[in-house]
Amino acid sequence: MLVSLKEIASLVDGEIVGDEDIVISGVAGIKEAKEGELTFVANSKYASLMNLTNASAVIVSRDVQNGRRALVRADDPYLAFTKVMELWANGNGEPGPPVGVHPTVVIGRGVKFGKRVSVQAYVVLEDQVEIGDDVIISPQVCVGRKSRIGNETLVYPRVTIREKITIGKRCIIHSGTVIGSDGFGFAPVKGVHHKVPQIGTVIIEDDVEIGANVTIDRATIGKTLIGKGTKIDNLVQIAHNVVIGENSIIVAQVGISGTAVLGKGVTVAGQAGIAGHLTVGDNATVAARAGVTKSVPPNSCVSGFPAKPHEEEKRLKANFRRVPQLIKTVRELERKLRTLEEKTK
Amino acid sequence: MLVSLKEIASLVDGEIVGDEDIVISGVAGIKEAKEGELTFVANSKYASLMNLTNASAVIVSRDVQNGRRALVRADDPYLAFTKVMELWANGNGEPGPPVGVHPTVVIGRGVKFGKRVSVQAYVVLEDQVEIGDDVIISPQVCVGRKSRIGNETLVYPRVTIREKITIGKRCIIHSGTVIGSDGFGFAPVKGVHHKVPQIGTVIIEDDVEIGANVTIDRATIGKTLIGKGTKIDNLVQIAHNVVIGENSIIVAQVGISGTAVLGKGVTVAGQAGIAGHLTVGDNATVAARAGVTKSVPPNSCVSGFPAKPHEEEKRLKANFRRVPQLIKTVRELERKLRTLEEKTK
Amino acid sequence: MLVSLKEIASLVDGEIVGDEDIVISGVAGIKEAKEGELTFVANSKYASLMNLTNASAVIVSRDVQNGRRALVRADDPYLAFTKVMELWANGNGEPGPPVGVHPTVVIGRGVKFGKRVSVQAYVVLEDQVEIGDDVIISPQVCVGRKSRIGNETLVYPRVTIREKITIGKRCIIHSGTVIGSDGFGFAPVKGVHHKVPQIGTVIIEDDVEIGANVTIDRATIGKTLIGKGTKIDNLVQIAHNVVIGENSIIVAQVGISGTAVLGKGVTVAGQAGIAGHLTVGDNATVAARAGVTKSVPPNSCVSGFPAKPHEEEKRLKANFRRVPQLIKTVRELERKLRTLEEKTK
Repeated sequence: MLVSLKEIASLVDGEIVGDEDIVISGVAGIKEAKEGELTFVANSKYASLMNLTNASAVIVSRDVQNGRRALVRADDPYLAFTKVMELWANGNGEPGPPVGVHPTVVIGRGVKFGKRVSVQAYVVLEDQVEIGDDVIISPQVCVGRKSRIGNETLVYPRVTIREKITIGKRCIIHSGTVIGSDGFGFAPVKGVHHKVPQIGTVIIEDDVEIGANVTIDRATIGKTLIGKGTKIDNLVQIAHNVVIGENSIIVAQVGISGTAVLGKGVTVAGQAGIAGHLTVGDNATVAARAGVTKSVPPNSCVSGFPAKPHEEEKRLKANFRRVPQLIKTVRELERKLRTLEEKTK
Repeated sequence: MLVSLKEIASLVDGEIVGDEDIVISGVAGIKEAKEGELTFVANSKYASLMNLTNASAVIVSRDVQNGRRALVRADDPYLAFTKVMELWANGNGEPGPPVGVHPTVVIGRGVKFGKRVSVQAYVVLEDQVEIGDDVIISPQVCVGRKSRIGNETLVYPRVTIREKITIGKRCIIHSGTVIGSDGFGFAPVKGVHHKVPQIGTVIIEDDVEIGANVTIDRATIGKTLIGKGTKIDNLVQIAHNVVIGENSIIVAQVGISGTAVLGKGVTVAGQAGIAGHLTVGDNATVAARAGVTKSVPPNSCVSGFPAKPHEEEKRLKANFRRVPQLIKTVRELERKLRTLEEKTK
Repeated sequence: MLVSLKEIASLVDGEIVGDEDIVISGVAGIKEAKEGELTFVANSKYASLMNLTNASAVIVSRDVQNGRRALVRADDPYLAFTKVMELWANGNGEPGPPVGVHPTVVIGRGVKFGKRVSVQAYVVLEDQVEIGDDVIISPQVCVGRKSRIGNETLVYPRVTIREKITIGKRCIIHSGTVIGSDGFGFAPVKGVHHKVPQIGTVIIEDDVEIGANVTIDRATIGKTLIGKGTKIDNLVQIAHNVVIGENSIIVAQVGISGTAVLGKGVTVAGQAGIAGHLTVGDNATVAARAGVTKSVPPNSCVSGFPAKPHEEEKRLKANFRRVPQLIKTVRELERKLRTLEEKTK
């Protein structure tokens, strides 16, 4: 697809410095971009980089004066670039997903379909499933009895949504993910583990994105809840009865144990773990690989294992690095003291 | 479903304090329970909590005298509650899984079915697969050549059981799990990795539950073995030739490396890792996020990385926190010593 | 299958000590081997072990003189044994995978098939997919629009290959793996996370093996690249725009963050994590559970979190263990100093 720089500036409410008739054929990173492509510099600190690119035009912030390339000045260059990327996104210029219900779909009793759905090959919809308007369900997905999927939600291939689960509107669920598997609960009797029935559900609110091969367990009783606008990366484990607030970010391979409650705007970075039955306050950040063993106050940042306030953890680690010198110092003190002791005998 | 308190007391061999004709409509946690529902207090230490619930009745231990709600006194309140939950479990009061083999099931040569099986849509059973009595195989499962699934086992949607695998009786295997993938073995020759054939198998004994998106590799030679009654949580990695004893608990995101041997009654908590070729003794506990690098004796508890006896790890961590003070103390000693040295010149 | 020792020696270019007519019925580890089976001892240091085995013959290195069993002396006993294992590998002596395209395969427009393909039940191939010669695609796999799979590649059941992905020749992709899911990229605007389109691709070069339930995200722009001959274990996360060089080894549950670049011959051991936008040099080793937060030079080994050169990390850990003694020493110094101070008053 070919788009003029003028059209791009109009799309992002930007201001052109240079030739507005330049024709753009695609988007690329600043190092990879070739002639005819558009790139961006998010921060004016790095504006000098734009003189090294082969791109024909660069989206920059409003305070960048000029450069060797044509510029589009915008309020938030990254966000503006993101809008431009949509023009070349995978679906664009290509036929959309097949509309309608593929003849191979197995449909239980009482299944309800919204308008303009795309339900693709080898999908299984059990009894009383409800599919909203404009929903896309890719091949080989299984949706259990009485589960509901909200309008405009996109489910990628090979997802399992177990029975009685609620998925909101405009959600995206990536391949291999399992929503509503049984919580991990057993009652031990003389060393034998008896299964505790997991009779609760999972509620995924609107605008949630869930990565590939994620597992979200259903509640023992009640619900596991993922708040509106929260984004979850690949291979994350979310145990029974966990509650995550709105607009939180859960990065890859994080594990959240049973009944933990996370607030709004929380960030949990990669490979971190959160123990059960505790609270992470609004807008808190859990650093990568942290192991959270007690509740985290709002607006704080914790790191390490057991997780501590990030500044405290940094000081501890710094002191740790001073131990070798400390050992030398103490040896020297011992020596000096012995000398003194001899002297004063 | 509605059940009288009398029926519930009879089910759990409990003793009622209060009105035995109270009608119970469901079960819930102590905070969430509404009028008409039943809840429980596991430990008499927390008995006072039961005065804060809106539940109409509470299962308590034998030593609780009375409260503001109707009580059912039972030997093990949690276990009793678990039994009651079964009454409201997902399947109850609803039609069971479809009986028989769905017409879309692809059946290889020599496949054998037990009695009353439920094999659902788009399942693939390769040659010589054997399915026991009362087995439920949910949609989109693939069972490889010559694998056998024992009586009453339940396989959730989208599970892969590779060829020549043995699954015991009354097992539960959650969605997305892969049993019998190749062990990770390569013979390096001048920097190039040559695949070592993985010609062994996996044996899952009776009463094992395996979570969602788990991976259990087949043995290089011989077998990977999961002992009777062991329960495995989501996203766990079990490498080739691992042996896990009976009634062990493996929590989410644990990784167990090749040829490790775990005893009976072992607990490995979340995100822990166990290196290859070592032993974890019977009834040992590996704490969350521990990294086990040498064998663990029976009945012990290890934590940290490298994992140490838990008490030792706690002392080390406590000492670690004393380093900042130690640095100050040593500085003060240096100062005092200098003063003394001057004095004694 | 029965094979004479003479045939085995010929296969591995080995030299027999003992009876060349011995008939071998299978292969096994040194402890498990029974009469009639063949085993191996990789290193002549452990040659004495071969006197404890029940195997009828043992593959050993060229410098082993003789033992209680028949021997086959070979240059690299492990590699030789690996070759022999192929004789008893799962496919051998059994019918191969069904040739041809199963009638249940859903085939989009413009799909191209190579020669001798095996495309099995309930596979979905979207528009313009290209399948090379001798490719095996197991049941329930989904291949997205315009993706290409090279000659002799083997895809196990229930794999998702998203649209516009390139898979090389002779690759092996295990069950449950997802290749080409969206990178995890969002542009925050006033606390709300706007999806950044992920318009790039994934390129898997020749001879790559990818374990079960792995996730490999497509690039935001450009490509995520897995180099020729690299082997990836189960449950690994590879984020958008990651580049991994040739012949690297990525062990189970590793996470590699966005835009990280790994060189050739790199080893990343189990459960390690690598932060985004950094470099791991050729032939570097990242130890198990290490957390890499800055670039790693070629040919080095790092461990710990934050990852440091392995020798430095070992020294730090050793010093850490000396803190308790240090605390005692300092207390003793304080006491002695006080005594001296009193004396010199």
